[in-house]
Amino acid sequence: MEVQIGNDARYAVIGYGSWATAIVGMLTRNRTAVEWYVRNGEVLDGLLNEGRNPKYLYELEFDKDYIHPSDDINKVVSSADVVIISVPSAFLKDFLAPLTVSLGNKFIISAIKGIIPGSWQTVAEYLHDQYNLSFRQMGIIAGPTHAEEVSRGKLSFLTLASADEKNARTVGEKMAGKHIHVCYSSDLYGVEYASILKNIYALSAGLAKGLGYGDNFIAVLVSNCANEMTRFIEESYPDNRNTFTSAYLGDLLVTCYSSYSRNRRLGLLIGHGCTVKSALNEMTMIAEGYYAAECIRHINLKHKVSMPIADMVYEVLYRNKSPRKAMAELSAMLDTDCSRSLLHP
Amino acid sequence: MEVQIGNDARYAVIGYGSWATAIVGMLTRNRTAVEWYVRNGEVLDGLLNEGRNPKYLYELEFDKDYIHPSDDINKVVSSADVVIISVPSAFLKDFLAPLTVSLGNKFIISAIKGIIPGSWQTVAEYLHDQYNLSFRQMGIIAGPTHAEEVSRGKLSFLTLASADEKNARTVGEKMAGKHIHVCYSSDLYGVEYASILKNIYALSAGLAKGLGYGDNFIAVLVSNCANEMTRFIEESYPDNRNTFTSAYLGDLLVTCYSSYSRNRRLGLLIGHGCTVKSALNEMTMIAEGYYAAECIRHINLKHKVSMPIADMVYEVLYRNKSPRKAMAELSAMLDTDCSRSLLHP
Repeated sequence: MEVQIGNDARYAVIGYGSWATAIVGMLTRNRTAVEWYVRNGEVLDGLLNEGRNPKYLYELEFDKDYIHPSDDINKVVSSADVVIISVPSAFLKDFLAPLTVSLGNKFIISAIKGIIPGSWQTVAEYLHDQYNLSFRQMGIIAGPTHAEEVSRGKLSFLTLASADEKNARTVGEKMAGKHIHVCYSSDLYGVEYASILKNIYALSAGLAKGLGYGDNFIAVLVSNCANEMTRFIEESYPDNRNTFTSAYLGDLLVTCYSSYSRNRRLGLLIGHGCTVKSALNEMTMIAEGYYAAECIRHINLKHKVSMPIADMVYEVLYRNKSPRKAMAELSAMLDTDCSRSLLHP
Repeated sequence: MEVQIGNDARYAVIGYGSWATAIVGMLTRNRTAVEWYVRNGEVLDGLLNEGRNPKYLYELEFDKDYIHPSDDINKVVSSADVVIISVPSAFLKDFLAPLTVSLGNKFIISAIKGIIPGSWQTVAEYLHDQYNLSFRQMGIIAGPTHAEEVSRGKLSFLTLASADEKNARTVGEKMAGKHIHVCYSSDLYGVEYASILKNIYALSAGLAKGLGYGDNFIAVLVSNCANEMTRFIEESYPDNRNTFTSAYLGDLLVTCYSSYSRNRRLGLLIGHGCTVKSALNEMTMIAEGYYAAECIRHINLKHKVSMPIADMVYEVLYRNKSPRKAMAELSAMLDTDCSRSLLHP
């Protein structure tokens, strides 16, 4: 259905991790009150008493007049016109399980960069099917936006993608600020898949680094990741996109090169010799790329796009393939013909 | 003219810097003898007596049977069929001044990533005009290949670009090895300009880092650099290239992100507050991007491609513009419309 939101729209955020917390920070900095679904008791207390999230971005202090934390998702959702969901994709079903209020008349934004395990769908595809929402009433928040830098006021570019550009701009203006530059895109499909794929590619970059490959090789690997990402999006949903922009290449670069990147870190640990299991245990936060690698493998059974890098990551994570052997075999498949054009690999 | 070289072709290298030294290393590792023009007395002695370059990549020891260092450029060139030139672009005229032997019947390869100051031409364009060489008898060596890693045996991808693919492959096979993967391209123009532009963009990334911008912003900046690079090459010489490959994006990434990058380092120093003059004095090796920024500015007077990033670097280096002000103004021009297609900015 068609949902039109105005400047007076009421906002809700679902989730209490670092990215959810940073998003609440952007909204409240612009004096937008936020209904906030927090299902963790410790975080809920911290927000109610101190105006801080004790687990993530503790340095961020909220004006308590602008946050309304609650552990009742129905109360939170029913009092909002715009619902921003930022939870690990693996737990989305679980987070939404107690929801009985309809989402039908709301504008729903996913800030999740992952796929729903088991259903093999992106968040937008899942909400479309399970909650009978039109793609037009949905948006995606993407871009190179490590929460740590956003909360510390480092200039960051954020992309709001939606088929409904008017709604996207209404929301974007609530988040924009001196240190937050908002870009707009109508490419819901491409932006969502790019934000999922980049986590798999960050894993591959971390693996290479951990295995002792140098900057020269990692630059070749990452450029091939950008190529593979663009190829997957364009072949599965052609739209003649310019993927040299922040929601696609930009997000890929920060995830592959930044020390903040969890997925890069997971690859690094495995490259250094940790087993996948022990590397996962080392992680304090969810590495979406771990789940995405299996999901994309499944989704690509339909599209059959050539994805040697994503396949390599899958083999290492789920097929117990030796990272050293896998990376060596992959390296022989990179840039095999540098003069080929993008869409005819 | 048409030059056909075979497996028995004789090789000469002109230059004694780190990249020239690494190139001689690749050739001699494959038991290809190299006539080597070295106009520096200290380096010449080191090579003749010790088989090492005392100034660059000292750890690299050459088999003296395979290197023939000399300070007589005419002797060196006259005994070669393939001449690989690797000197700072600013000194090319100077290096070639004593040359009286004709290059006309040889295959000439430029490993220089810069523009000839004053003549406002790339090396290929300059050799074409000044030495009456056909573009077909020329090649370019490019790709993300920091000499330090190449000499330490870190897997690196190198691109040999030439309109004459047969000659390119003949040379490429002499350089390829366990740790050197050679790609081939027919895009002499695009590969040469990409290898020049990336140094300007690395300067911009270093500037941003030095000014205190974070990973989020630098990822947006670098993806816009890739966009600007592609736009310049495609608008000035359309060829529907895939610039998501190592000679274009790959080389840009290593130069923007690697700590080995001199151009990034120059930008970093200026971003930290050094004057351009004192930053240049700090540099132990030539930063090609400094010269390239002025040359591209001049060359683009003809093409009139939109190049806000290269323009910003030029203003800071040559117009004494405040880096902080310049970067702030630039940031407002990045990704202004994320849904635009590549060639219609």
